[in-house]
Amino acid sequence: MAKELTTRAQDYSQWYNDLVIKGELADYSAVRGCMVIKPYGYALWENMRDVLDKMFKDTGHQNAYFPLFVPKSLFEAEEKNAEGFAKECAVVTHYRLIADPNNKGKLMVDPEAKLEEELIVRPTSEAIIWNTYKTWIQSYRDLPILVNQWANVVRWEMRTRLFLRTAEFLWQEGHTAHATAVEAIAETKQMLNVYADFVENWMAVPVLKGVKTANERFAGAEDTYCIEALMQDGKALQAGTSHFLGQNFAKAFDVKFSDQNNKQEYVWATSWGVSTRLIGGLVMTHSDDEGLVLPPRIAPIQVVIVPIYKGEEQKQVLDEKVSEMVKSFKAAGIRVKYDNSDHARPGWKFAEYELKGVPIRIAIGARDLENKQVELARRDTKEKAAVAMEGLTQTVENLLVEIQNNLFERAKKYRDEHITKVETWEEFMQVLDTKGGFISAHWDGTAETEDKIKELAKATIRCIPLDNPLEDGKCVLTGNASTQRVLFARAY
Amino acid sequence: MAKELTTRAQDYSQWYNDLVIKGELADYSAVRGCMVIKPYGYALWENMRDVLDKMFKDTGHQNAYFPLFVPKSLFEAEEKNAEGFAKECAVVTHYRLIADPNNKGKLMVDPEAKLEEELIVRPTSEAIIWNTYKTWIQSYRDLPILVNQWANVVRWEMRTRLFLRTAEFLWQEGHTAHATAVEAIAETKQMLNVYADFVENWMAVPVLKGVKTANERFAGAEDTYCIEALMQDGKALQAGTSHFLGQNFAKAFDVKFSDQNNKQEYVWATSWGVSTRLIGGLVMTHSDDEGLVLPPRIAPIQVVIVPIYKGEEQKQVLDEKVSEMVKSFKAAGIRVKYDNSDHARPGWKFAEYELKGVPIRIAIGARDLENKQVELARRDTKEKAAVAMEGLTQTVENLLVEIQNNLFERAKKYRDEHITKVETWEEFMQVLDTKGGFISAHWDGTAETEDKIKELAKATIRCIPLDNPLEDGKCVLTGNASTQRVLFARAY
Repeated sequence: MAKELTTRAQDYSQWYNDLVIKGELADYSAVRGCMVIKPYGYALWENMRDVLDKMFKDTGHQNAYFPLFVPKSLFEAEEKNAEGFAKECAVVTHYRLIADPNNKGKLMVDPEAKLEEELIVRPTSEAIIWNTYKTWIQSYRDLPILVNQWANVVRWEMRTRLFLRTAEFLWQEGHTAHATAVEAIAETKQMLNVYADFVENWMAVPVLKGVKTANERFAGAEDTYCIEALMQDGKALQAGTSHFLGQNFAKAFDVKFSDQNNKQEYVWATSWGVSTRLIGGLVMTHSDDEGLVLPPRIAPIQVVIVPIYKGEEQKQVLDEKVSEMVKSFKAAGIRVKYDNSDHARPGWKFAEYELKGVPIRIAIGARDLENKQVELARRDTKEKAAVAMEGLTQTVENLLVEIQNNLFERAKKYRDEHITKVETWEEFMQVLDTKGGFISAHWDGTAETEDKIKELAKATIRCIPLDNPLEDGKCVLTGNASTQRVLFARAY
Repeated sequence: MAKELTTRAQDYSQWYNDLVIKGELADYSAVRGCMVIKPYGYALWENMRDVLDKMFKDTGHQNAYFPLFVPKSLFEAEEKNAEGFAKECAVVTHYRLIADPNNKGKLMVDPEAKLEEELIVRPTSEAIIWNTYKTWIQSYRDLPILVNQWANVVRWEMRTRLFLRTAEFLWQEGHTAHATAVEAIAETKQMLNVYADFVENWMAVPVLKGVKTANERFAGAEDTYCIEALMQDGKALQAGTSHFLGQNFAKAFDVKFSDQNNKQEYVWATSWGVSTRLIGGLVMTHSDDEGLVLPPRIAPIQVVIVPIYKGEEQKQVLDEKVSEMVKSFKAAGIRVKYDNSDHARPGWKFAEYELKGVPIRIAIGARDLENKQVELARRDTKEKAAVAMEGLTQTVENLLVEIQNNLFERAKKYRDEHITKVETWEEFMQVLDTKGGFISAHWDGTAETEDKIKELAKATIRCIPLDNPLEDGKCVLTGNASTQRVLFARAY
């Protein structure tokens, strides 16, 4: 029996959970809000991580590793950052368990083993890293520092969703230090472009690049640049952020350098990150009611081959033929799986690999051998066709490229159709409640109006697009003068 | 000025710290017992990780990721395991900070945000993983599960040393589930062999394979297999362990499967791990008084090229010539760095890359260009020679292999010379106090004697070697009958 899935129309949120769990990407765990990333989901993350890691290294960054814990006194040093994360911090207060005298075989926290200073499990690492950079930086010769870290972080969120919002998640966080503001801002933008490149060209997820308003900025940043994607339910998802931190952390941790004139200056900073949340965005961008749809460039399995046979003899003939195909695929760098297990019938396997989003399925039976062809099915369009065995590797290579492009174009068309210009508050609410997507509207530039809109519509300003054209207009809520449109949406 | 290093003869322990810190592998952090792994050290770890990861995948394992936290009730389920780690657990008790009313600008733990159940920061993941496997395993068809995790773990050690013993460290932990004891034991041994292969053939560190005594077993294991290395101060280092866990965790978490006869059976388990501790062992095996000595196969930089020039014109000519060399090296897969920075003189650079353990240094000046040669220096033997530019890539490739082999042979010779058979307690103490290394001695097989020896000599049984020959003898301490020799040593 194939696994039953909720459809998007029935219950979008349950559809998402079904795909993540039944598609074997991740599962709930015994720890509130924390997930288990299953082998199939982790293989996807590994592919994403490896591509990103290469992009970081190609732009001159190196990896390092900093402590999981942040002593409270360091955590609170940059006040805005501390305030922003204080409400969701896991705090280590003790360092030992002892036998519980009242409960045989059970343990209790040893009250004698209380830490002098509490340790915060990092929700982000600016504090511990800038405290370290203090010792790395003396002169302009020590700059820039271009460091990235792959790590787990913890934010004690009240409402969690697999991948999209979990108490613990995996991410990378870049933390760079520069001699000038100009250089730091250039770095911030460079990494935003790296993210956009990765998300669009590898994940096939179109994104809008922009800047956050002061309200939506990272706690402790001067400016937060972001890429925003659109999900199939019309909600936006922040897919990555790159922060220009100014001299805030340098001042909080007293990190100065002597410049070429031997003058002491505070160091300029950036930080930037993407996380396992991207996987949630991937699922919600491409998938359908039959399951996951994964873009070929990052799919753990790009091609699955299912033999169709009666009896051991037919199977052996197919095994032999397919092993040649597999060898040729692997030589071309194609990630292929041959599933000749006896546990399940071909129909069950077809449904299973559809659910898992494998881009191409090849079915091959005795008659196909005679006709020197195979049946080739695309996951994205569900099209099936008989294809010649001759030149099959090249056919598959081409098709993987085509599927990758199709997924991006399909998602981009949907996204572009869901950017709606509105002029009035009525329109604003109507589009939001019926069509969804991004709303391009004038805003008077005040935090008060932004808050009011959030309260009334549960929509936030996702970003002020980069290179936004200036245009006189009237704020969609207050009617006050406005100089540009911004993008609103309800968001994950 | 080159950095000053303590010599081994002066203070072995300080020499080690100097190498780790001044060689820029790692540094102390603001968090007690936690280290910062610096980019150079992390690049070394990445190389090690990538090789191991491929070995795990080649033996059929997949990666996954499990939560950082273990709820106390799960942690205590396998009693021996819990007892073994209880004394060194970091415990999360609260999930929020609030403004401290008595201390403006400071934060305090919110007493209202106390967790109902404390969370242990994983010291190892058997508990959380076996609680998960319970939901993954129903039938024999779900077995084996061959999963590995790359993660950080925390053990609140009282005395810490960079890499060798830190409160937080990075590691991998394999956790497998099997239908039979035979299969699980085969897996345990297979992974021990993978570790030995990696440590000997990539890290050039010779190891002895063996089994731990009951006293030294992993808490919760039926049998702990280990590889033991020998450091230059004569102390042993446990470099990796592979545990046969029997059905202990399956019973603690009630993980059963229905076998082919539809009978319910408890699942058999293994776990196995190596950590950043290996880096400490690497440093102490090969390095010398001038600094680190890294084996070519895992060195972040295999070859450094230093130009020797007067004036910008000479430099440009060299830059051009070297860029060809670099291209040829890279095409051959050689990790090469060209250091033409103006910050430092050649002599300073020579000392710096010696300190960092780069296996081969190439120096090239104007006269070398004329003579179509370069000066080539080996880090391991300090030999220098003029070498023809023609065929240089091949020369370097061959030399990297030779250095790798030389490091292993040199370390193996030292190790073999430091396995001493002794018959009496006097000899035992004398060898331990003067020569050090492994002592091969008869032991009566009792935990009491083992404890007594530990107390008297601060030496432990490192392992009972695999395929140990049986041989009648008398226990080195008690004189009681013994059937085999075991290996004792003082250890890290």
